[in-house]
Amino acid sequence: MFKEVDIERALLWIEPGPVTLVSAFDGKRNHVMTISWTIALDFAQRIAICTGSWNHTFDVLMKSRECVVAIPPVSMAEKVIRIGDISGRKVDKFKKFCLTALPASTVKAPLIAGCSANLECSVIDHLENYNLVILQVNKVWESKKTERSKMFHAFGDGRFAANGKQMNYRELMLDKLPPNL
Amino acid sequence: MFKEVDIERALLWIEPGPVTLVSAFDGKRNHVMTISWTIALDFAQRIAICTGSWNHTFDVLMKSRECVVAIPPVSMAEKVIRIGDISGRKVDKFKKFCLTALPASTVKAPLIAGCSANLECSVIDHLENYNLVILQVNKVWESKKTERSKMFHAFGDGRFAANGKQMNYRELMLDKLPPNL
Repeated sequence: MFKEVDIERALLWIEPGPVTLVSAFDGKRNHVMTISWTIALDFAQRIAICTGSWNHTFDVLMKSRECVVAIPPVSMAEKVIRIGDISGRKVDKFKKFCLTALPASTVKAPLIAGCSANLECSVIDHLENYNLVILQVNKVWESKKTERSKMFHAFGDGRFAANGKQMNYRELMLDKLPPNL
Repeated sequence: MFKEVDIERALLWIEPGPVTLVSAFDGKRNHVMTISWTIALDFAQRIAICTGSWNHTFDVLMKSRECVVAIPPVSMAEKVIRIGDISGRKVDKFKKFCLTALPASTVKAPLIAGCSANLECSVIDHLENYNLVILQVNKVWESKKTERSKMFHAFGDGRFAANGKQMNYRELMLDKLPPNL
């Protein structure tokens, strides 16, 4: 389903600013959160995500010091938004959302089937003041049938865009939005 | 040309991950650089950009402690990429690229006419290890005729996408890309 590609391709998945899924493993089960606040840091394949203890998967990721950053295609948009709207503290989101976890090679966090790309990452720093988790990408897997144009982007107000089309998921995430947006 | 909008709208321009123009003023003239490595940090309108002294405008921005992050529409794509491909150390890029600088209200860095949005920002921190400049957005201006779907995104390898269409500018920026991309 996935093929390993050059490590330099990691940034090609982060720089465009897509909505991502971040998975982590707590020793017993897998966890996953939706993150659209990401940044490329350098050509040594360091990237950062902005998250904190309001996301249960963040706690798992900080304890295990590793994660997978997956890039879902737009066909998974509604699922990705629903994943971002509930906590995995008591719910196994892989089961609830019928996600298929596949074994990664350098981390125990799982790859996510159906995503366009999966980046295996180690946590190398945590900048608490800014809720930034600095990640080193170890390995990049791309779907054998990846089409980059299928990436989708968050506007930040419940609307999303892909391929020039807008999608409105405000109702699914109203509780996560500041009141005046 | 621009109207001021709620400060909370700042993140709506950063979260989707568009290519941006960042302007700064050195006391004598304006400078501008192209930055597509950006991240939203919190709902207090803090954002970060990843840049360093390889960008002349970075030096200006660090001395003046302020900048404007502008979001160009896709119709400016080629100009934006050319702006990112040359240094402003000796060249006035506002003149060379016929950019119109408009006065901002909280910073001396200029707004850029023709952009969809302009975010007036103060530099509040610099995380040198990761080349991250932490910015506080003070004010948001949006074009009166903004269409958010006109944002465009960098793939990171010289290709760009907007509205589901791909654009290839690899030849313009080959010297900036790692050799195997």
